[in-house]
Amino acid sequence: MSAEIISGTQMRAAILEELAREVNMMREKHGKVPGLVTILVGENPASVSYVSLKVKTAVSLGFHEVQDNQPESITEEALLDLIDQYNQDPDIHGILVQLPLPRHISEERVIHAIDPEKDVDGFHPVNLGRMVLGDRRCCFLPCTPAGIQEMIVRSGTPTSGAEVVVVGRSNIVGKPIAIMMGQKGEGADSTVTMVHTRTRDLAAHCRRADILIVAAGVPGLVKPDWIKPGATVIDVGVNRVGTAASGKAILSGDVDFEAASKVAGKITPVPGGVGPMTIAMLMKNTVKAAWMQLENRPDCTHICR
Amino acid sequence: MSAEIISGTQMRAAILEELAREVNMMREKHGKVPGLVTILVGENPASVSYVSLKVKTAVSLGFHEVQDNQPESITEEALLDLIDQYNQDPDIHGILVQLPLPRHISEERVIHAIDPEKDVDGFHPVNLGRMVLGDRRCCFLPCTPAGIQEMIVRSGTPTSGAEVVVVGRSNIVGKPIAIMMGQKGEGADSTVTMVHTRTRDLAAHCRRADILIVAAGVPGLVKPDWIKPGATVIDVGVNRVGTAASGKAILSGDVDFEAASKVAGKITPVPGGVGPMTIAMLMKNTVKAAWMQLENRPDCTHICR
Repeated sequence: MSAEIISGTQMRAAILEELAREVNMMREKHGKVPGLVTILVGENPASVSYVSLKVKTAVSLGFHEVQDNQPESITEEALLDLIDQYNQDPDIHGILVQLPLPRHISEERVIHAIDPEKDVDGFHPVNLGRMVLGDRRCCFLPCTPAGIQEMIVRSGTPTSGAEVVVVGRSNIVGKPIAIMMGQKGEGADSTVTMVHTRTRDLAAHCRRADILIVAAGVPGLVKPDWIKPGATVIDVGVNRVGTAASGKAILSGDVDFEAASKVAGKITPVPGGVGPMTIAMLMKNTVKAAWMQLENRPDCTHICR
Repeated sequence: MSAEIISGTQMRAAILEELAREVNMMREKHGKVPGLVTILVGENPASVSYVSLKVKTAVSLGFHEVQDNQPESITEEALLDLIDQYNQDPDIHGILVQLPLPRHISEERVIHAIDPEKDVDGFHPVNLGRMVLGDRRCCFLPCTPAGIQEMIVRSGTPTSGAEVVVVGRSNIVGKPIAIMMGQKGEGADSTVTMVHTRTRDLAAHCRRADILIVAAGVPGLVKPDWIKPGATVIDVGVNRVGTAASGKAILSGDVDFEAASKVAGKITPVPGGVGPMTIAMLMKNTVKAAWMQLENRPDCTHICR
């Protein structure tokens, strides 16, 4: 038997279509479109490629997109001033600072400087805290976990009462998705276990999982016999395992896809799985931010999941 | 075989002694003591009794303690103004607003109004967010989960790699303690599962637990045969199950203590378990807040666990 493939690329297309309609509604109602600034410091090739994909997507949706590239040598103070300027700018609803930043700049200080109402990456502690509280004003769920949850829901996998095992406890994936799946409400209500390097019997935990979310950054970590037959497997790993003749990186997830798809019920590929969803969620957060700011609302329940 | 009793009352005494020494050091170094304001709105009997215990403890430690009682009829605006006044007051390092508040006041708005640096209850979203991130500036862990973790550590229960099962997913106990026990570092590094009303097989999960933390608010929920022999059991439930001839409430936990102590390795009683620890942690947070504010430090690593 072969697992159903959960295509992030296809889901992204569907979400972007929904968002394009929202942008049109916004233009009609307010004469405005969502404004996103992407701040890139230096010329790290991976960062350049991530940012250009974000910019391209924003432009394709009709956003007001400001691409603000700064030299590697920018001081922390100047960067903080720049952020403050965008915090004050009524045409900018979302601020994205591409990480990592050069060593002489504190990422923490930079993230804290972004107005939480414009924090479309969902990295500001106040947004994380609201997420823990299940606060309906938390519209800015961190993009990768939000994309994972969206994939689970859109794939038709039942979550209420499901056993979810999250492999990895990073701040940007493992911890937030573990919290989100255990919350009350639709697309959640699961029984969640978060496992990590100190866990005694990784395999036994994984075997219990109806939904297995793997974000460890270790290629091939999860063996096919760790997967419960019929389970939904979400592979968040993006590991560079070699270089093709063309010079392009060969990417592999944390799960052995070929072998795993013989056991799993549904599975995400790498690439083409979680990756595309992350960008879709960034766009969704920006649309939400714009609605909230344009209509001066303290929450955005009607557009939040 | 009978379980070792983890006495919150005894641990509280030890912690208060440590804190009294800190207060003396602070007085010598800065000519100041920790300042705590306890704001009580109305005359809810349970709240009156909690607040008076907090006040008594703060006074016994030599704190500058301000007891600010306000009538049930106070407006939200007036309460927010009052909080702002204490936010500005350099002699007040910690602000505690006793919950619940009357219906016409938004608890959320009130909690958000407290300066996060004075939020000794650890309820402000920014402090919860920092806690999720494992930010060393998160000194204000919410008091009940912090007390639970402290009890586990002080009882000598190993946590690294231990299976922890948390029963209940409230914002003030279940969710934060689940996050805290799964973090990297001393007193944590556990494999954590959070179970709740939607969980399919509660008993099976509990039986896996080396450390079972029960915060469901259901008297006698956890049966003795749900406990792994030798496990450490932390019972957070405080349920009023009757009234003694004296008129005093008869309290019972979420675990059948008598039967469970024949199976567990270590167990907390109710009362005299987690309850006293919560107050000790509130005092600890206030001492931390005072150090941070007096020495104008952005973190307090040396006094944080």
